[in-house]
Amino acid sequence: MSSLAEISRICGVSLGAASKALSGKPGVSEVTRKRILSVAEQYNYRPNRLVHAIQQGRSMTIGLTCNKFGGGGGDFAGRIIESMLKVLYEADYDAIIINWDMCVHQGQQVLRTLAERRIDGLLMFPPADQPSQEYLQELSNLRRPIVVIDQSFAGSEEYDFVGSQDFEGAVSATEHLISLGHRDIANLFHRQSSTGRARLEGFQHAMAQAGIPVSGKWVRQLQSLSASEAYNHVRELLAMPQRPSAILCFNDLAALDAIKAAHDAGFKVPRDVSIAGFADLDISTRIHPALTTVAQSPEDIGQQAAERLVEQIEYWAQNKRSAKKTGATALLPPRHLRLPVRLEARESTAIFRPQMHFA
Amino acid sequence: MSSLAEISRICGVSLGAASKALSGKPGVSEVTRKRILSVAEQYNYRPNRLVHAIQQGRSMTIGLTCNKFGGGGGDFAGRIIESMLKVLYEADYDAIIINWDMCVHQGQQVLRTLAERRIDGLLMFPPADQPSQEYLQELSNLRRPIVVIDQSFAGSEEYDFVGSQDFEGAVSATEHLISLGHRDIANLFHRQSSTGRARLEGFQHAMAQAGIPVSGKWVRQLQSLSASEAYNHVRELLAMPQRPSAILCFNDLAALDAIKAAHDAGFKVPRDVSIAGFADLDISTRIHPALTTVAQSPEDIGQQAAERLVEQIEYWAQNKRSAKKTGATALLPPRHLRLPVRLEARESTAIFRPQMHFA
Repeated sequence: MSSLAEISRICGVSLGAASKALSGKPGVSEVTRKRILSVAEQYNYRPNRLVHAIQQGRSMTIGLTCNKFGGGGGDFAGRIIESMLKVLYEADYDAIIINWDMCVHQGQQVLRTLAERRIDGLLMFPPADQPSQEYLQELSNLRRPIVVIDQSFAGSEEYDFVGSQDFEGAVSATEHLISLGHRDIANLFHRQSSTGRARLEGFQHAMAQAGIPVSGKWVRQLQSLSASEAYNHVRELLAMPQRPSAILCFNDLAALDAIKAAHDAGFKVPRDVSIAGFADLDISTRIHPALTTVAQSPEDIGQQAAERLVEQIEYWAQNKRSAKKTGATALLPPRHLRLPVRLEARESTAIFRPQMHFA
Repeated sequence: MSSLAEISRICGVSLGAASKALSGKPGVSEVTRKRILSVAEQYNYRPNRLVHAIQQGRSMTIGLTCNKFGGGGGDFAGRIIESMLKVLYEADYDAIIINWDMCVHQGQQVLRTLAERRIDGLLMFPPADQPSQEYLQELSNLRRPIVVIDQSFAGSEEYDFVGSQDFEGAVSATEHLISLGHRDIANLFHRQSSTGRARLEGFQHAMAQAGIPVSGKWVRQLQSLSASEAYNHVRELLAMPQRPSAILCFNDLAALDAIKAAHDAGFKVPRDVSIAGFADLDISTRIHPALTTVAQSPEDIGQQAAERLVEQIEYWAQNKRSAKKTGATALLPPRHLRLPVRLEARESTAIFRPQMHFA
């Protein structure tokens, strides 16, 4: 790989002449141009996009901040990211990827680094916890388009958002269980995340609509989302004198843990207990029983988020100069998008059978 | 966020004076320096790393090319990537992430773009298929440190490599099944990948060592790694008049599909058929029966690969000028590392029971 400086040196011409020849601009003779192009080909000349970025005031690079994307849950984030990368690639943007997990106390520092890299925009899976004031300030200081993905936080209303209809999904999963005759429905919820809170509300709403009381003993909070947590809750729930006949889980992984716990406690799913998840991960159809779950659309989330970011960047690039003069914002008004979900009724839920339930 | 140009304009000083003040160099009065620093603070000045990159001839950016990292298999790649990002973050490198899947016929173009971005090095999950000659040439043209991860290919010997002991892992999984009394062992293999070929060889080696013939009917090639493929093979295998008592699978996902197929065909795992995987994905302990598998070390792979890349980049940065003069390579000799694996014997494999097998 050779740079402009090397090509001009090899050809014995000025930087300006080499630049004109390589970019097809006038000002060099045809003979010289051909010679320079031939040398460039021979020495694998590659234009320097960093120079171009500085000249244009656009790096054609965006920041992509994410949480954990190993683990079973990585399927969901991974599919969103793949979809975003596709859109960005087609629009000629590159993505610098940053993982919050490794810098949880250095969020501001990460944002500063991205600013120093002169990113044109930010696709943001928010940090797991509510960002600090310093962090929110640094986010605001970026003055670049930002699209928040999947999870919202206090302060994220200012930015574009693309996520799922978590509330509606939990309503339809709960209604599904109720329609199968279940009334004793447990819920493993996750209050730390905005999606978890919305899903809990959806569950409570659907239960209230059906006039079914929710038993406090059966509504369990997941803290860490570790494999053992949902498992232990379900072992406890199924060991109670009056046990639930169905369990709605925060996500598919908790549902997997619940199925394993039920199995290890000697219960059959769905004969003795119905279990439903949320997400529709790849594995939800690869296990037995195939998991009843609320299917989200990670590919659409990624596509919508990346397309919106590119749209905002184009708008920003066109308007930043005039906006600076007038003091106006150089961004389109934030748009908050929650993509539809759909219930996938599979093998892990079945009609309530009272004789088995109180056996 | 403000640039150097904006700070100098606001302060009414030259670019040079602003630069000196902000970088702590002499040449401006203490009063001016304080005023410039105060304005920089107020206007959220961020130095431009692109300028620094051009000046230093190092972008402090590396390319990270990967395949599919959604899907269940994303857990493995995701954990490697997380681990790599951690090392890179600590060494102050950013990673530009590119997904081969979206540009399978444009591999050369991706490499050209990375060259134009002036990446300092490349962490490379190879494309799924053997790269073309043009691709290999472009890789060589990069003239930057490259570390190949997990899968090797014809031509990858020239570069650093970090992967797993696939052959040894398959040997130990096969020996585990043999030690449980199994002789009728099927194998679902994957010839397209270098890991798949090594695992098939490990299986054949262990069977030959034990003097057990391998039945051609029971050795099945996976083509697409789709969910239905392993499933359908196992349905066929278990419907044969003489069926295998154990199935060694290319990876954990194929093993999951195999367990589901056995279950749907009315067989119990491990009572009627033992099933083993390869990888030790997060879900392998979240399902029932918990999966017997060969555990790889994705975190170690990621760490070793990223640390090696950083080491090579430091070496390259120190030696590139002198190497250019002498025509020598500015890189350390390539190192090929295969990290140890270990058998995790869990619930999906059990002692061979002839009465059940021929029932």
